[in-house]
Amino acid sequence: MTRWTAEVRVTLRHGIADPEGLSIADALRALGHAGVEEVRSGKLIRVVFSADDRAAAEAEVSEMCRRLLANPVMEDASWDLGTEPEAVAIGSGG
Amino acid sequence: MTRWTAEVRVTLRHGIADPEGLSIADALRALGHAGVEEVRSGKLIRVVFSADDRAAAEAEVSEMCRRLLANPVMEDASWDLGTEPEAVAIGSGG
Repeated sequence: MTRWTAEVRVTLRHGIADPEGLSIADALRALGHAGVEEVRSGKLIRVVFSADDRAAAEAEVSEMCRRLLANPVMEDASWDLGTEPEAVAIGSGG
Repeated sequence: MTRWTAEVRVTLRHGIADPEGLSIADALRALGHAGVEEVRSGKLIRVVFSADDRAAAEAEVSEMCRRLLANPVMEDASWDLGTEPEAVAIGSGG
């Protein structure tokens, strides 16, 4: 078993209203960032987990996204997957 | 002026409690992902803006993070910055 770190990005699908993004854009402009055109907000979810190999890890992250991390009706999910030496150095955890 | 897209990642600093991450980890394990060790949640903020060149764009994103996007006491911010052909193709915007 190898320890993997998935950095999952969950973003609103194109066309889905994003009031948080609009608020951030307004606030940035009010602070003087006049060149701001658009802001879209999303979630970043970092998952540390164990899996046998890269194929198994990819399959597991895909299933996590489908079942819990993203709402497929209004969100898209993408991820980067890697083995993290830093995480490994901490130990095998609980 | 060039159009830039910054993908800003705002994550909780090491040691800051993350109840949302703990809840996601518990839910993933309850769904059968027994190998999940840790989950940390964060924000992903995509900002489309105009700036003269890369140096100016970097400085502007850095200031956005410092002034609004991240709380420096408990969050870290990092970003990828690029010119987005897709965005440019849409037009110069409002």
